[in-house]
Amino acid sequence: MRILVTGAAGMIGRKLVQRLLEDEALGGRALEALVLHDVVRPEADSPMVTALEGDLSAPGAAEALVAHRPDVIVHLAGVVSGEAEADFDKGYRVNLDGTRALLDAVRQAGLHPRVVFASSEAVFGGPFPDVIPDDFAPVPLTSYGGQKLMGEILVNDLSRRGMIDGVSIRFPTICVRPGKPNRAASGFFSGIIREPLVGLPAVLPVPRGVVHTMASPRAAVGFVLHAATMDTGPLGGRRAVIPPGVAVSVGEEIEALRRVGGERAVALIEERPDPAVWAIVQTWAKAFEARRGRELGFVAEDSFDEILRVHIEDELGGRVPVAEG
Amino acid sequence: MRILVTGAAGMIGRKLVQRLLEDEALGGRALEALVLHDVVRPEADSPMVTALEGDLSAPGAAEALVAHRPDVIVHLAGVVSGEAEADFDKGYRVNLDGTRALLDAVRQAGLHPRVVFASSEAVFGGPFPDVIPDDFAPVPLTSYGGQKLMGEILVNDLSRRGMIDGVSIRFPTICVRPGKPNRAASGFFSGIIREPLVGLPAVLPVPRGVVHTMASPRAAVGFVLHAATMDTGPLGGRRAVIPPGVAVSVGEEIEALRRVGGERAVALIEERPDPAVWAIVQTWAKAFEARRGRELGFVAEDSFDEILRVHIEDELGGRVPVAEG
Repeated sequence: MRILVTGAAGMIGRKLVQRLLEDEALGGRALEALVLHDVVRPEADSPMVTALEGDLSAPGAAEALVAHRPDVIVHLAGVVSGEAEADFDKGYRVNLDGTRALLDAVRQAGLHPRVVFASSEAVFGGPFPDVIPDDFAPVPLTSYGGQKLMGEILVNDLSRRGMIDGVSIRFPTICVRPGKPNRAASGFFSGIIREPLVGLPAVLPVPRGVVHTMASPRAAVGFVLHAATMDTGPLGGRRAVIPPGVAVSVGEEIEALRRVGGERAVALIEERPDPAVWAIVQTWAKAFEARRGRELGFVAEDSFDEILRVHIEDELGGRVPVAEG
Repeated sequence: MRILVTGAAGMIGRKLVQRLLEDEALGGRALEALVLHDVVRPEADSPMVTALEGDLSAPGAAEALVAHRPDVIVHLAGVVSGEAEADFDKGYRVNLDGTRALLDAVRQAGLHPRVVFASSEAVFGGPFPDVIPDDFAPVPLTSYGGQKLMGEILVNDLSRRGMIDGVSIRFPTICVRPGKPNRAASGFFSGIIREPLVGLPAVLPVPRGVVHTMASPRAAVGFVLHAATMDTGPLGGRRAVIPPGVAVSVGEEIEALRRVGGERAVALIEERPDPAVWAIVQTWAKAFEARRGRELGFVAEDSFDEILRVHIEDELGGRVPVAEG
């Protein structure tokens, strides 16, 4: 089994690679080669890994990756929502042209690989019902969402034509996101958990009643592994899937934090309303039906307590520093 | 008022240009310049017209058109469904890259024009309800439909960002299409009317019970003129509109033909079932709610009799040759 991962230096990419190297297999087939690509060279200490860096949309870049003849391609590469909104050209170049370059190279090489495309719930734009049904019409309200939807259309079309065997995952917000706070408007969903757990302050810029759908990084890796190995027959011409997630309010997040980190953790959250962030968050979907995703075998956490437990296990070695101090 | 029309040598393009030159105005503003573009040089005998030919996706082509500083751009250019399916590269180059090149040139010139984009009901893929609601999720099942949906996403995104003021029209099948039979699988909807009216034989490859939605070429031009002049405020972020049309069965078409052309006309239709055409036609939508399109002021015929009358007026000088002979 030969696997290519783009965006391999990103958060999900690194966790996916770690998991693949631990498993040494995918879908019951032994791992033979792992080709990693990102704008910065991905790190991975294994003789099976070929690590490459560069711009996927640059001439010849995608062809060079595809020359490794992957059986499975996990296409995670992309610029995030805020950057695609701030830099129109870069967003289209990376998120649309990069995806197209990769798929074109695959087509011209005649490979027919499984392609797992990282799409996003940002393909949807409001007004929303409280729970978004699986057949809700996507009307993106950001450039990022539009670029992801265009990627889905390409994946559908090339799959229909038998050029690839694609699955697009409409990722929910990933929480608890490890590492440092980033510039994403959704960052606080993770920040108000991650920072207090280790005794650091965090800012909550929106009201506690805000409801949002989340899945853990571990669940996100699980989505990718499932999409890479599932029977795609039941997808028909509709290759984009909404995976399950946990729809939870910020208040419920905080109560879950209190259960493991106590008052001391909760006291580290400063409520500092930010009208700009609040305006963005109000345009986001709250909850998804995701029945089709569940029926197709995608699995996520059932509660925010479980998301929190996964974070403590995977990122904190099972410890809760704020409760120990 | 300066107007650019791409695909100006096509059927709708020619009728639109004729209408604009007759009106000498658009939306109450006098016509100053009409820039026409197509892969073959559009013909128009007027000092106001600049006619250009070429490939819109070729380097510099779109910039050369936009250099005429149009206030309104009507982007009709594209390869049709059958060709986009047969030639993967050409379909994406013309229908996606051409559209993107045009919009990029507009953006870089800082023009902010009204852009009317010819999309298609092919953005929808089945399974369909009998009447498709306005918020039905588009899942294209052809490359053409996917390319048109990607164009819509671009029009939405650039409109949201204030770079253009766009409207995408999801055209229904145009009937009665004048001229010679073409290779479109939908050609028989027009052929079984157009040919018998002038005493020529026509083939019907599908059962009479097939229902399909149609509008006349005159209505299609009306859609474009309305989209070019309407208040786009009520569109919000959803710039794609399903215009109204007439949902009619092939049998009803034939009865309308009988009313104006008699048995003699109907006898010229040979029913010769074609499983290949029938297979394609069965994947098409039957009828559309189109409530939003009506509320936004788009107008089409109310019956197939009216579509037929429009054809006789516009293409046959008010005469019905088969009934005269």
